[in-house]
Amino acid sequence: MRTLDFVVIALILSASFLQGQAPSTLNVMPLPAKVQVGSGQLIIDQLFTVAVTGAKDSRLDSGVPRFRDQLSRQTGMPLNTEPADAAKATLVIRCENAGRKVQELGEDESYTLEVTASRATLSAPNPLGALHGLQTFLQLVQPTVTGFAVPVVTIQDQPRFPWRGLLIDVSRHFFPMEVLKRNLDGMAAVKLNVLHWHLSDDEGFRVESKKLPKLHELGSEGQYYTQAEIRDFIAYARDRGIRVVPEFDVPGHSRSWVAAYPELASMPGPYKAGRIADADTVLDPTREETYRFLDKFVGEMAELFPDAYFHIGGDEVNNKPWDSNPKIQEFIRAHGMKSNADLQTYFNQRLLKIVTKHKKAMMGWDEVLQPDLPKSVVVHSWRGQESLAAAAKQGYRSLLSNGYYIDLMWPAARHYAVDPMSGPAASLTPEEAKRILGGEACMWAEYITPETIDSRIWPRLAAIAERFWSPQDVTDPQSMYLRLEEVSWRLGWLGLTHESNYVPMLRRMAGVEDIKALRVLADAVEPTKDYTRSEVYPQPPVKRVPLNRLVDAARPESTVARHFAELVEKYIKSGYQDAALEGQVRSWLVRWQGNDANLKPLLAGSFLLSEDQPLSQDLAALATAGLLALDSIGKKQPLPDAWRGEQLAVVQRSMQPRANLLIMVAPSIQRLIEASASPHAAGQ
Amino acid sequence: MRTLDFVVIALILSASFLQGQAPSTLNVMPLPAKVQVGSGQLIIDQLFTVAVTGAKDSRLDSGVPRFRDQLSRQTGMPLNTEPADAAKATLVIRCENAGRKVQELGEDESYTLEVTASRATLSAPNPLGALHGLQTFLQLVQPTVTGFAVPVVTIQDQPRFPWRGLLIDVSRHFFPMEVLKRNLDGMAAVKLNVLHWHLSDDEGFRVESKKLPKLHELGSEGQYYTQAEIRDFIAYARDRGIRVVPEFDVPGHSRSWVAAYPELASMPGPYKAGRIADADTVLDPTREETYRFLDKFVGEMAELFPDAYFHIGGDEVNNKPWDSNPKIQEFIRAHGMKSNADLQTYFNQRLLKIVTKHKKAMMGWDEVLQPDLPKSVVVHSWRGQESLAAAAKQGYRSLLSNGYYIDLMWPAARHYAVDPMSGPAASLTPEEAKRILGGEACMWAEYITPETIDSRIWPRLAAIAERFWSPQDVTDPQSMYLRLEEVSWRLGWLGLTHESNYVPMLRRMAGVEDIKALRVLADAVEPTKDYTRSEVYPQPPVKRVPLNRLVDAARPESTVARHFAELVEKYIKSGYQDAALEGQVRSWLVRWQGNDANLKPLLAGSFLLSEDQPLSQDLAALATAGLLALDSIGKKQPLPDAWRGEQLAVVQRSMQPRANLLIMVAPSIQRLIEASASPHAAGQ
Repeated sequence: MRTLDFVVIALILSASFLQGQAPSTLNVMPLPAKVQVGSGQLIIDQLFTVAVTGAKDSRLDSGVPRFRDQLSRQTGMPLNTEPADAAKATLVIRCENAGRKVQELGEDESYTLEVTASRATLSAPNPLGALHGLQTFLQLVQPTVTGFAVPVVTIQDQPRFPWRGLLIDVSRHFFPMEVLKRNLDGMAAVKLNVLHWHLSDDEGFRVESKKLPKLHELGSEGQYYTQAEIRDFIAYARDRGIRVVPEFDVPGHSRSWVAAYPELASMPGPYKAGRIADADTVLDPTREETYRFLDKFVGEMAELFPDAYFHIGGDEVNNKPWDSNPKIQEFIRAHGMKSNADLQTYFNQRLLKIVTKHKKAMMGWDEVLQPDLPKSVVVHSWRGQESLAAAAKQGYRSLLSNGYYIDLMWPAARHYAVDPMSGPAASLTPEEAKRILGGEACMWAEYITPETIDSRIWPRLAAIAERFWSPQDVTDPQSMYLRLEEVSWRLGWLGLTHESNYVPMLRRMAGVEDIKALRVLADAVEPTKDYTRSEVYPQPPVKRVPLNRLVDAARPESTVARHFAELVEKYIKSGYQDAALEGQVRSWLVRWQGNDANLKPLLAGSFLLSEDQPLSQDLAALATAGLLALDSIGKKQPLPDAWRGEQLAVVQRSMQPRANLLIMVAPSIQRLIEASASPHAAGQ
Repeated sequence: MRTLDFVVIALILSASFLQGQAPSTLNVMPLPAKVQVGSGQLIIDQLFTVAVTGAKDSRLDSGVPRFRDQLSRQTGMPLNTEPADAAKATLVIRCENAGRKVQELGEDESYTLEVTASRATLSAPNPLGALHGLQTFLQLVQPTVTGFAVPVVTIQDQPRFPWRGLLIDVSRHFFPMEVLKRNLDGMAAVKLNVLHWHLSDDEGFRVESKKLPKLHELGSEGQYYTQAEIRDFIAYARDRGIRVVPEFDVPGHSRSWVAAYPELASMPGPYKAGRIADADTVLDPTREETYRFLDKFVGEMAELFPDAYFHIGGDEVNNKPWDSNPKIQEFIRAHGMKSNADLQTYFNQRLLKIVTKHKKAMMGWDEVLQPDLPKSVVVHSWRGQESLAAAAKQGYRSLLSNGYYIDLMWPAARHYAVDPMSGPAASLTPEEAKRILGGEACMWAEYITPETIDSRIWPRLAAIAERFWSPQDVTDPQSMYLRLEEVSWRLGWLGLTHESNYVPMLRRMAGVEDIKALRVLADAVEPTKDYTRSEVYPQPPVKRVPLNRLVDAARPESTVARHFAELVEKYIKSGYQDAALEGQVRSWLVRWQGNDANLKPLLAGSFLLSEDQPLSQDLAALATAGLLALDSIGKKQPLPDAWRGEQLAVVQRSMQPRANLLIMVAPSIQRLIEASASPHAAGQ
């Protein structure tokens, strides 16, 4: 079992590190395919040099200085920038071949990193592997007793899946280039290789079109990317080993298109782009004009986006506009179709011809998987793992996003437990299984802004990246969390704001510097899960709702709640006997119990916080109940059932959305309350 | 007394705010000249609009959108950007005149801001006043029960001094444009109006010269600003109401010049730029070639820098190179001079002709104040307040930097207590006093990097800015600190990193996420003061020493130490009777006592932290002594003198530099230890 190997390696490392020779853990994420740890370490000091041998590739020309800058930033050491010759360099990169002009799906991304006490060698058949190896190297650098160092180690590494992506929706909220770029840097750090750019939706069309300029002029509320910016962005991504796959979602999710060109719609307009409550709009697939338009559009975009794949969306087509239009229903009958689904298949086939004509491979969300869909289309599963396996069985290449929707505010472990090859896909033949290309995490943008997006993506994306890269049997959530906590803060060196924006957002709400009490509450809650956040649309002339409340600052996964749950778990496992653990549990409860009194003035003073008063009160009530339960357990004096009933009602309430938040420490306190029902004997 | 007025105002405000109608304090810094607070507030919501009437000025064209972006950032509210007409706008700006094409010393910077419950009016005779008023407005916006709001208020404001500057030394360490720009934003926020750019020194020459290109080619180690960057920077500063005054320090501090042009030196070369231990180099003032060179150079720079003032340095001329050169000594004799000082006066007079020829007013450090110095030269006092007053008395205009050297790591209150008009200047006649133009804080760059510079400048600079702007009787350090703490975090919205870089730097040193224990130590220490930091030069081929230790992360002024000192003070003032205060003091001591045990593994594991072990041990020892003292005081059982002697030795040691740090809570603990000498009766 490879998983066991890693545990063993970790133990060996811990042992040798305790002798002060190396860092205390290999905080590498994703875990490499094969790691052999030696003894000793390679010191990284200011004389550190890099040499590149072998093939010439512009991504190494820019990647090596970027790597050196990053190493300098994370160590705080100015490094000399003179090029070194291969015989003397601390790190020698040997890259066998230059890569493809446009990065391709399935290019070799493997690398070997050998670190001895005197030097390091990074070998890769392709620049992509070299870039990945440099990221591994950066993660290995740790302060030790004798200096910054990398442990002596041999790593042979390659990805499990060739398609490892992140979707960013820039339609529902718009994100400036600098926000996207820092996230590309984060993606590269965890070896993701596809940015799926969801560029159009009902709310906004985000690309400058020179041939159909009304699209961005009338469909974007002024928020779009120029073609020059897009080219620059694609080059930035390529430099980091990342493909950019554009998505233009049709025929549904197209209100912003018909705001510009109402003649494309299935129902008469007018339409408006923007974030408003409105039924989904659908293009009219029965008019030839629609296809002439799409041909012109795809032609222009196919030139702008060099990637071989072109995502046409195809999801969630609202039946109503087609049902309500007699001409469309007549078209269905006249062409011998049975349903709207057949009409969408017809649309997809027409669109596929256009996409193919412009030399792109088409992909779409899993609704496109209908009979007669040509086998060249890539199927993107969002509704479940069934369609992933079904598509592969039927001969389609497919990738998985179901289970990786990071807007749903799930804990990292829940995403981590989703494997593209598990469930229905587990029984595929090897040939079928090969059609599963990988997966994509999806960052839908209903509730994110440039200020909050990083904290919704990071650090959880790193766990998903490990799922896509590391061997299938790397599944231990404990190991994942240990490393995730360390990787998370290091991602801050890239300019990602998922940690740094927390306190400023809390201070904005409170209007004061001292937000200790607010932080205690914020640390203990999480945004509600799935699609339970109460949808609020802006009232015109306001265009966007502020996302500046506690729900927006609170982390998708509360580290405090997770650690507290572990603590309670250990205490229970000790048979309620371990006094040190009891003391730690008590200390948290005491803090929460007293917090409401400290927090009250802040909550009462700010319109942004008043909705959080019940949460603060219930956190204190839960803590009081937890303390009584602890006392009862300690004294072996069970508490009355009636008391317990009342407290469990508070627990129930705490796990119901209020101010779009849940009190995530409630279930752990519930365990203590429940334990107060009976006396606990030693060792029980 | 105006100071009293402010205290009264603050009390009135606190009272009305407690009724939930307005924020709890006017966190405005610098305090305006005149404030009249009304009742009620103006709500700032997403429909907020701004209109500009009166004179047209490009600084308002760019300043208003920048103001709106800043308001949006600090509130987290998307704001509409449509221009509003003056009759309907929430904020109307009336600017009477356009400003000068190049911002001039003494332009009118006054403004009046009137806020009613329905709208705000900002009137100013000049765009500079309008820009300042917008900054005041931004500082007034606070969350309240009913929304973000500005209190109803009338502010009439103008600066006390026309020259309010910050010097940034970019020679000893180089700072990229983005670092300087975010600091310009911070300066504008606290109404400073001069960036004194110390562009050359021994270590590096930082400006591209097209006429004398070896200056930047050989004098900068590759780190310099292109002329295009400089023009862009000056425009950026002008947009924010800030003049850029260049300094090229001659004839001393010129090693980087003679690294490029050794023929200019008083002694034979060769010379090297860079941060090396080396005696100061001095230009040869006896050769005509030197003046031909300077004429060419000043001519080029006078065109590049539009400001009317040109700073020639002139400080700390090392006598040795002139003494050692027989030709120079011969020149002194031949020209009937008595000393090197006369030679420098000769040099200054020659240089003044050149500077004047190129239509600039010359300024220099106070060494230039020699007999026969023409009255047009502005004298910049760095060595003491005496020269400031002396210069004014003799008819020179002068400004003060002595007392405002923020590299010396003084607390804000110490800088705040320095007034340009106090001491020798207090006895000047009104006419003489008018010659004192203001002052400049100085950020010398021996020990700062792009990562740490913000935390050395901010928030202390805001207190100095208040000294330069606010009425002379605004001197209460308590009021200053209350507002400084609130202004500090708000400066973070400008991208300043003085708060956000703290935890990442601690984590880098520790190599792990959990740095709670390290932070407890870091919060309790400060870098050593004045020029006591042990100077370390890089060993070639390394060019720069890393500044990544605890001394670099620690704040120049420990807020924890200041608050603890206040706490101990209050406790002592209560006659050692206040149990709540005793509890708070005890709680800090308990934390420090236990901290060393938690911190030990981190300190032992990292080469960056091992030097801090004695500090951590002594903090624990001090805390233990403090706790024993507290017990002794509580029980009225004096502790033996021998014990006290031992503990006071630890206090002494704690205030001596180790790892370039001082344990700043030591003096407060000392007071407790001393109090343990005798029993304290109630009310004593």
